[in-house]
Amino acid sequence: MIQVNEYFEGSVKSLGYTRTNGKSTVGVMEPGEYTFNTGSAETMIVIEGRMEVLLQGEDTWTTYGDGNSFDVPGNSTFQVKVATQTSYLCRYD
Amino acid sequence: MIQVNEYFEGSVKSLGYTRTNGKSTVGVMEPGEYTFNTGSAETMIVIEGRMEVLLQGEDTWTTYGDGNSFDVPGNSTFQVKVATQTSYLCRYD
Repeated sequence: MIQVNEYFEGSVKSLGYTRTNGKSTVGVMEPGEYTFNTGSAETMIVIEGRMEVLLQGEDTWTTYGDGNSFDVPGNSTFQVKVATQTSYLCRYD
Repeated sequence: MIQVNEYFEGSVKSLGYTRTNGKSTVGVMEPGEYTFNTGSAETMIVIEGRMEVLLQGEDTWTTYGDGNSFDVPGNSTFQVKVATQTSYLCRYD
């Protein structure tokens, strides 16, 4: 079953599925600022658009565009700023 | 607004959004066989998984895996066979 997830009152939506070696989601973020919490570690890949990201414990924001990816440790938070609708792939370890 | 689309009784779901130069969707297909109709021309990119594709007027199926893409003319149909959950990006021209 393809799981439809909604966060931040529908400003972030994703579709959950199983890939060959684990769980993933593909999703879209509306323009805005978001704080996410991780359970397991995950890798985020920007599909189309742009994200500014601040990982927990860091003090500089990094910008990721189409095809760029970043790793997020498990049991941590990360902040994301999005200026235009942005799609992403999230791979859970 | 992020549009949630469902096709084939939920076996294919997608999220619609606007990219910098047009409309796109990211979606997931359950294992199965599907026939899609296009309005405008589109480019399909496999994100994770595998698709076997038969374009209208062709007689050989072509397999596309992660990162592979294919173009579909407007106002045409294409058939897709999927053996495992597969995510994709569709860019509308």
